[in-house]
Amino acid sequence: MKLYSSSCGIELDFSNACAGRIGYAGGITEDDLNSVRQKAQAAHSAVEKVRAEGTLGFLKLPYTDPKLVQEIKHLAADIERNYSDFVVLGIGGSALGNIAVHSALNHPFYNNVPGESHPRLFVLDNVDPEYISAVMDMLPLEKTCFNVITKSGTTAETMSQFLLFRQLIIDRLGYDAFKKQVVATTDPSSGVLRKIANDEGLRTLPIPPDVGGRFSVLTAVGLLSAAVTGINISDLLEGARLMDEECRKPEMTENPAVMNAVVQYIMDTIKMRPMAVMMPYVQSLRDFADWFRQLLAESIGKKFDRDGNVVHVGTTPIKALGATDQHSQIQLYMEGPEDKFITFLGVKKYRTDLTIPAAYTEIEKLSFLANKTFSRLIHAEQQATSEALANNGRPNCTITLDEISAKSIGALLYLFEYQIAIAGELYNINAFDQPGVEEGKILTYQKMTC
Amino acid sequence: MKLYSSSCGIELDFSNACAGRIGYAGGITEDDLNSVRQKAQAAHSAVEKVRAEGTLGFLKLPYTDPKLVQEIKHLAADIERNYSDFVVLGIGGSALGNIAVHSALNHPFYNNVPGESHPRLFVLDNVDPEYISAVMDMLPLEKTCFNVITKSGTTAETMSQFLLFRQLIIDRLGYDAFKKQVVATTDPSSGVLRKIANDEGLRTLPIPPDVGGRFSVLTAVGLLSAAVTGINISDLLEGARLMDEECRKPEMTENPAVMNAVVQYIMDTIKMRPMAVMMPYVQSLRDFADWFRQLLAESIGKKFDRDGNVVHVGTTPIKALGATDQHSQIQLYMEGPEDKFITFLGVKKYRTDLTIPAAYTEIEKLSFLANKTFSRLIHAEQQATSEALANNGRPNCTITLDEISAKSIGALLYLFEYQIAIAGELYNINAFDQPGVEEGKILTYQKMTC
Repeated sequence: MKLYSSSCGIELDFSNACAGRIGYAGGITEDDLNSVRQKAQAAHSAVEKVRAEGTLGFLKLPYTDPKLVQEIKHLAADIERNYSDFVVLGIGGSALGNIAVHSALNHPFYNNVPGESHPRLFVLDNVDPEYISAVMDMLPLEKTCFNVITKSGTTAETMSQFLLFRQLIIDRLGYDAFKKQVVATTDPSSGVLRKIANDEGLRTLPIPPDVGGRFSVLTAVGLLSAAVTGINISDLLEGARLMDEECRKPEMTENPAVMNAVVQYIMDTIKMRPMAVMMPYVQSLRDFADWFRQLLAESIGKKFDRDGNVVHVGTTPIKALGATDQHSQIQLYMEGPEDKFITFLGVKKYRTDLTIPAAYTEIEKLSFLANKTFSRLIHAEQQATSEALANNGRPNCTITLDEISAKSIGALLYLFEYQIAIAGELYNINAFDQPGVEEGKILTYQKMTC
Repeated sequence: MKLYSSSCGIELDFSNACAGRIGYAGGITEDDLNSVRQKAQAAHSAVEKVRAEGTLGFLKLPYTDPKLVQEIKHLAADIERNYSDFVVLGIGGSALGNIAVHSALNHPFYNNVPGESHPRLFVLDNVDPEYISAVMDMLPLEKTCFNVITKSGTTAETMSQFLLFRQLIIDRLGYDAFKKQVVATTDPSSGVLRKIANDEGLRTLPIPPDVGGRFSVLTAVGLLSAAVTGINISDLLEGARLMDEECRKPEMTENPAVMNAVVQYIMDTIKMRPMAVMMPYVQSLRDFADWFRQLLAESIGKKFDRDGNVVHVGTTPIKALGATDQHSQIQLYMEGPEDKFITFLGVKKYRTDLTIPAAYTEIEKLSFLANKTFSRLIHAEQQATSEALANNGRPNCTITLDEISAKSIGALLYLFEYQIAIAGELYNINAFDQPGVEEGKILTYQKMTC
């Protein structure tokens, strides 16, 4: 079955996940769908109920106050005028969305392609001293704007980086430069970074308190770096708004987010396929898969359900890239254990194309390439991989964008966020916390203080 | 238990995989080890027997003819003198090793860090037209050397790129430029690319016929791009040679490759943990995990065992990065299903370090960072994550390099190659073929020709 949203330009094709196509071991039947239909409807009602109550922040982001959007655009324009480099200090949800949107919509070699007029972008999402030092090698300090992003202000990695660059700027350029060159994106009223920003008089942007890190790409967290690098953030939000329309549809089979959540849920819990591979056949979506990895893993990987039962649920997200990983992972996906469900991401029309010239056409193994386009080759490879898997009973589905644009990327981000909210209901777990990382934080603190 | 090779500077620590530490559900007992001891000894004997027969090429690579090493160095020096850019046209085993070695040993922003004197490196490992076009945007064609790498010469992705750049050079710079600017790395005597190279008079380097793509990083496949970017390839091979000494040891508990293979095998087949996460806490090893992904997935993911039984075996490799993915995957690894075994990669001494300056020390959540180094922070995070997982019965092990150097990277690459050869024996499958990708190739061909 297929589901197409013409407003978003996004198609979901579940044909290769159906029992009629791939057999009963891996394929979904009408009975499977019917067995979760009620649960899915309840899940949708539950999410829409929370929307009505106004307590789930990400649902409001498509309708972000235009004044805030304007404020972000003005700040971005100011940064663009005054700086050659823009550095995001953030990790996890304060980095992955920024990187995903940037990769999808800007030049693959954005930071050094001739003719790029916007500030270079570095997203410093680790505390490896070699890596931080390398970023420092790249920066003309007086021409660099730093965007420190953490809602609480207690993220050790991000705040360490902030302390480092703060001191560096003060030492080399003076205290006023620090105030000018650092923008803080944080909770509007509470938390450590908010206090620091207020005390120091830094420019700030808000992260809504009811939006968790992994759902924050469409807040100022993701929008400022996007705007600084020339992406139309109004289009991103417009795409999310259009997808939100789709996500409001109560009928499961008409709602792409619910349908995708249901299929993933059946694959994990009925078809016993605990691994969810996301495999774009679009180089520019490679980091999108990393963004989704966090969204799925942190939201659904949980020990307790909402009734306090120990359940240890969670699909494991796996990133792959077509056609590249045909030469790395497909052997395993074809012949290994039947424990995966693969989602291909494709695009109907690449933003550019090239033709393979004819040469050595007397060699049969090369002649079939002559005068074909690269887009035909990669499309053929994507379809061939999907079909070969289906022929071997390996379930997969394909999400195809008409084109890669700020609008379609906004829609795609929102599709998966809504899907994960639904998945939380299906698994009956809290999709919006992450209690499992606390122990590591406590142990880190102990090791740093004794 | 721990295993340290002082010659290689590599330690394997299996403490957090032992039942005594983490309990019986996820932990290995003496009985578990004894149950595979005989099999492991037989596996080692089998690999050493093939070594004696001289038919398994990767085992000979640490002892590569110094004349060939000199030839590669001379060619690299010539390229360095004459070109500003070096482009690898290759995919899978003809790209992943190149990228892994480059990331591990060169500057993280090698291609545009001020002061880098070696040619820039691009590894073109996909056929996405947007991506190829983007690489073209970057290249001053007349100053670019192309290294086309495919043993057979029938890899569609690589040969398409070759045809594209061949025509581009001929059209813009003439036929002689094409002959000068393209180096072919391929089978020494047979195959399509060998024939083309001979007919055209291209410069060539050999890929030994008995070395498969995913084991080829220490052949000319990986060595030329390494040498061009300034890496000491003799040190890489020396590291592999030192590790080979360790791998010859017949006693399982003294042999790091056998021991690692045994632990992974027990985790998959006895402890029922089919996912193998590799999580470096060293930013520069992030692409090493991708290289290992191919090695493990293609080698061990198999439908048939060597007796023709349908077995559908294969551990699924998963890449993560510390500390970054603490904010993405650790929630799932801590609380989700008990289906993973995690290998941390660490380093004792980072090549550089930085101190976190003291500021806002009245804020308790920040004061613990003051005047600590970033290496202490990331070390603390790595240990904390490993301990927290162990405290929750989640098995993991840690491989620690004394330092990141060409020697230690050579040793690490070889460690995993030998380990996978042993794993093939333990699973009783052919670790050196990839029959599962044929169907996709045939379907691609059909879609390209009708």
